[in-house]
Amino acid sequence: MSLNLKIDKSIDEAVYFQLYQQIRELIKNGALEGDSKLPSIRVLSKELGVNSVTVVSAYNMLEKDKLIYKREGSGTYVIPKGGDLFLNSEQPIYFEPGELDTDFEYGDEYIDFSTSAPDPILFSIKDFRHIMNEVLEEDGAKAFMYQRSMGYTPLRNALKDYAKGYGIDCTPDDVYVVSGAQQGIDIIAKALVKSGECVFVESPTYSGALAAFKSRGAKLVEVPLQEDGPGIKELDRLVKLFKPVLFYAMPNFHNPTGSIYSERKKKYMLLLAKKYDFRILEDDYSGDLNYTDSKLLPVKAYDNNDRVIYLKSFSKIFMPGFRLAYMVVPEDIRKKAADAKIASDISTSGLMQRILCKYIENGILEKHITYLRKEFSIRYLEMVRGVKKCLRGASLFEPKGGLNLWIKLPEGVASLKLYERCKEKKVIFSPGTFYYNDERGQSYIRMSFAATDIEKIWTGISIISLEAEKLRT
Amino acid sequence: MSLNLKIDKSIDEAVYFQLYQQIRELIKNGALEGDSKLPSIRVLSKELGVNSVTVVSAYNMLEKDKLIYKREGSGTYVIPKGGDLFLNSEQPIYFEPGELDTDFEYGDEYIDFSTSAPDPILFSIKDFRHIMNEVLEEDGAKAFMYQRSMGYTPLRNALKDYAKGYGIDCTPDDVYVVSGAQQGIDIIAKALVKSGECVFVESPTYSGALAAFKSRGAKLVEVPLQEDGPGIKELDRLVKLFKPVLFYAMPNFHNPTGSIYSERKKKYMLLLAKKYDFRILEDDYSGDLNYTDSKLLPVKAYDNNDRVIYLKSFSKIFMPGFRLAYMVVPEDIRKKAADAKIASDISTSGLMQRILCKYIENGILEKHITYLRKEFSIRYLEMVRGVKKCLRGASLFEPKGGLNLWIKLPEGVASLKLYERCKEKKVIFSPGTFYYNDERGQSYIRMSFAATDIEKIWTGISIISLEAEKLRT
Repeated sequence: MSLNLKIDKSIDEAVYFQLYQQIRELIKNGALEGDSKLPSIRVLSKELGVNSVTVVSAYNMLEKDKLIYKREGSGTYVIPKGGDLFLNSEQPIYFEPGELDTDFEYGDEYIDFSTSAPDPILFSIKDFRHIMNEVLEEDGAKAFMYQRSMGYTPLRNALKDYAKGYGIDCTPDDVYVVSGAQQGIDIIAKALVKSGECVFVESPTYSGALAAFKSRGAKLVEVPLQEDGPGIKELDRLVKLFKPVLFYAMPNFHNPTGSIYSERKKKYMLLLAKKYDFRILEDDYSGDLNYTDSKLLPVKAYDNNDRVIYLKSFSKIFMPGFRLAYMVVPEDIRKKAADAKIASDISTSGLMQRILCKYIENGILEKHITYLRKEFSIRYLEMVRGVKKCLRGASLFEPKGGLNLWIKLPEGVASLKLYERCKEKKVIFSPGTFYYNDERGQSYIRMSFAATDIEKIWTGISIISLEAEKLRT
Repeated sequence: MSLNLKIDKSIDEAVYFQLYQQIRELIKNGALEGDSKLPSIRVLSKELGVNSVTVVSAYNMLEKDKLIYKREGSGTYVIPKGGDLFLNSEQPIYFEPGELDTDFEYGDEYIDFSTSAPDPILFSIKDFRHIMNEVLEEDGAKAFMYQRSMGYTPLRNALKDYAKGYGIDCTPDDVYVVSGAQQGIDIIAKALVKSGECVFVESPTYSGALAAFKSRGAKLVEVPLQEDGPGIKELDRLVKLFKPVLFYAMPNFHNPTGSIYSERKKKYMLLLAKKYDFRILEDDYSGDLNYTDSKLLPVKAYDNNDRVIYLKSFSKIFMPGFRLAYMVVPEDIRKKAADAKIASDISTSGLMQRILCKYIENGILEKHITYLRKEFSIRYLEMVRGVKKCLRGASLFEPKGGLNLWIKLPEGVASLKLYERCKEKKVIFSPGTFYYNDERGQSYIRMSFAATDIEKIWTGISIISLEAEKLRT
């Protein structure tokens, strides 16, 4: 294949830069399509009569621009253009997540579509006070002692039954209490991932997980999502190519897109995990918030070969301030997980564990989840209506569950710019760039309705729509 | 130097094993003294007319037995025998901490000298309930939302003043709230230590810290402690040899020995840290529990060059169940520490932070610490009296502060065996093996008096003494 590149050594422009510009143009104008293979460095330098370092420099610049990518042992390829809500691109990209920026402190005057933590108004302080007092009467200061690192035994018992309600058959010994889902991810990274090993993550995905894996020195590989999970052929290819030790996935109401893996894909993932000996870390942060009548099981419910570590946060269906989540951990990695937990923070607050235990035992948690599901389903419908009605030119996926809408912005509206504009008007959301490592995120925003009532939903969407219109013109 | 080794190829014993046995004997009977240099593999194999692999095998076995050690780029040396309460040995040893085993669940029928968490009886549930209700009234469900990852702002303000009371001059921006000191260690390990880099730890030391550093793939080097901190020459030598990135130290009432660094050594450590560009992670878990009138400052109070990360637990002077500690972090590593915190668990419980904040603001924490100091100082004196009176042949260091006594057992009494025997009699303590990676720990036990009243102290020591007597005969 010849690219018809022309190098002019007489002009005052470095040769590598001429090369870079010309290939860049070929990609931008579509002459070089997605997944086209570029000539090897040796071939191209020979063809053009330039030093191989020159070609390497040009390719490096193109890679930095996220225009081309290297496949190990295969060559250099053009990255296909993104385009729709879900990527159909075939290329794996090593993630380099940007700066973490989850440390806002916005006042009450903001309409906050960025947090997926429930509205405090939905939480009953009366119930909490009642349960807290019960715990203090029964256990007194004992509740303030160190706990066993895997968790308070009665709570682990209760969680075993709780997990059964989601189709997960386990014993109390399989259950580990952790201080929130982020810690669960960090513990599993510590237990299973060594520096240089490969971890699969969905694309887009939750940046907190990326941070934990990056901190272990993991090589991160993106698995592009379709509406019903990763492409089977694509997943096959990536697994063979990169031999991951772990796949971090959110198969039900994925964050940020809201997509749900089909049952077939859930099962296929398990098959691959068995065949190629990797684990799946299933982050089920909002599987219980299903607004339809159809049953939705976690991947763990189908797991007969101890492939899945199941991770369930209570931050979205209870309150994040409890800092509580639990994991169901396969027997052969229990010891490693326990050591990692001790190294992380010894044990989780015994007081909070006792309180959650009572919430579960006396049925208040279940009632609370039912209440949240009802409340959130109303907000969900309003959000969908609002976006469809007001946000001209946007498209959205309707997950019928979870806490987020993933919205593709109208052509020409960049999410970071829209974010800055709306912030001035006291409306915030999560720009897509939080979930991608590159410019692809500029086309999307994530709007959560966990902390916004119906009035705020309509006011907020109106303001966002107005700002988006201004950016289009 | 010739060792007069004799290899007999006619007998039915592998040559490497003959070699191993003979050198072992020379070390055991003292013919080869501590820190003697062994012949190089090349020299010895030539001298004996054996394959170099044979010598390597013998040396490897001796190293496994902790009889010899390698100094990088220098050769192989004999490890000096331990002997007294504090090691005077000159050799660095790479730690390979044994199994973590902090996950006991002993009932109330046990006399527990192993935990250094305060007796629940010393904690006022009434105060707690009062403060908790105040927080709920003021902030309601807001207290259950995510917090800023560096901590709840009013608490950071209060902690800045609190730190000032210990001679530490800082701003609220320097203060980071973490979920217990173990998490602080883990976060600093994540922020500062890359795989293969060298971290100094005291010998003996707290095994939870070792777990966090090991998890990062750090190379751990022991710094032997004298009664008043590390030997200055020795520390000098080790720093030059190993170029650490971090020194994890407990300069006031060290765990487990109770030793206190002299002011001169505290300052010298800072000097070295500046000269050789490493940081000190100062774990001040019980510096406030000083039972004398002499003022005791943390190393951080002398730090003019941002060398020290100061870490203060509230588990020993408040209750561990709060899972609260704070750090004072130099400005140039703040961003890294913040990222590591987010990757670890996003943020610490806002409810608990608000409660601690009120405890500090209304002066109850200070009163509580004064109360604990008085109570613990009585227990401390009884412990010292009891051990001196009952435990024949034991020696102990009298720290006059903190929560632990470090006791050298009578000759012939191994700590693990004593532990097993006492456990049967419902008395537990921490065997020295928790704080060493090898047999040296067998000579020591750590007895904490945080959770034992005077009656338990005397009963417990009597039982331990009886069992120790039985083991001697």
